[in-house]
Amino acid sequence: MLTQKQYKEAQQKALGYMERAGVVLSKKDRENIHVADFGLSDLEHQGGQILTFFNTDRISSKVIVLFPWQILPEHWHPAIENDIGKEEIMRVRWGEVFLYVPGEPIPYPKGRIPAGEKDHFTVWHEIIMKPGDQFIIPPQMVHWFQAGKDGAVIDDFSSTARDLQDGFTNPYVMRETRIVED
Amino acid sequence: MLTQKQYKEAQQKALGYMERAGVVLSKKDRENIHVADFGLSDLEHQGGQILTFFNTDRISSKVIVLFPWQILPEHWHPAIENDIGKEEIMRVRWGEVFLYVPGEPIPYPKGRIPAGEKDHFTVWHEIIMKPGDQFIIPPQMVHWFQAGKDGAVIDDFSSTARDLQDGFTNPYVMRETRIVED
Repeated sequence: MLTQKQYKEAQQKALGYMERAGVVLSKKDRENIHVADFGLSDLEHQGGQILTFFNTDRISSKVIVLFPWQILPEHWHPAIENDIGKEEIMRVRWGEVFLYVPGEPIPYPKGRIPAGEKDHFTVWHEIIMKPGDQFIIPPQMVHWFQAGKDGAVIDDFSSTARDLQDGFTNPYVMRETRIVED
Repeated sequence: MLTQKQYKEAQQKALGYMERAGVVLSKKDRENIHVADFGLSDLEHQGGQILTFFNTDRISSKVIVLFPWQILPEHWHPAIENDIGKEEIMRVRWGEVFLYVPGEPIPYPKGRIPAGEKDHFTVWHEIIMKPGDQFIIPPQMVHWFQAGKDGAVIDDFSSTARDLQDGFTNPYVMRETRIVED
């Protein structure tokens, strides 16, 4: 959970990153940045700041801001009814991103996970992404990613997003952010 | 058709617009800007400069540059086999765009079509789009758009693009650009 103050501060901070990265925002967009703590109450290490431009029954587009070293926890997009699972394309706009997917694990990863969280990160094939780099994450592929030291701004395109139905390796994850009074 | 020189000049000019609009480009992207004259050999009035970031069997993302007053000719995305037709979302990043779709025609449109082209533009419901504005174009909806006086840069998201199978009102349109030696 996050306090209202924490939530608003993270929104403002994310807005600053988006502006620095040249994201063109409408007035409505500025009020619609969603802060996800994934129920872990540790935004500094795990979370994401997400602005959804649209999400139709076919396609979706978001901007994701990660603060310095912030991790978007390991997850996958499962098959749901007629959908074989969300296909996602990440394209880095600003900063550096370390993306982890199944495959040959890297012996000395650039990503750093918090102490005690080892079991919640199972894929360690590292892809280092810089501005202009993009990567296609196929349906159901387990993945997680982390910003480098400056944070990151990511353009994220996909088939329909059903975020609340994503699967997470960490059983403590709750996809909806609970906000409590300060 | 375009000469090689015309083609390359348009590519370079489009690159300048993208840079001014803050589009983050890889080295490969810089070489992949496609110039479409729609077979009309009149790039100044009708055409588009298009960079495709990706086009999978589910989703696609492009950046479209229009030069000042350049028109992307009236067209629609037809149903093809199991696909009910491309769903497209235009989001203006830079400049001004006049989008025309079916509906109440506007008496004094901002868009200006070349003399003798009247029959090739049948929808006149006007949507004026500025940076940060977005519009969903449903499958099969007839539409065309034109940049304002400064040109425009558009982020264009969609389901799978099958550009060569798009339908055009103007029977003289050929979707593939022919390039001839200077």
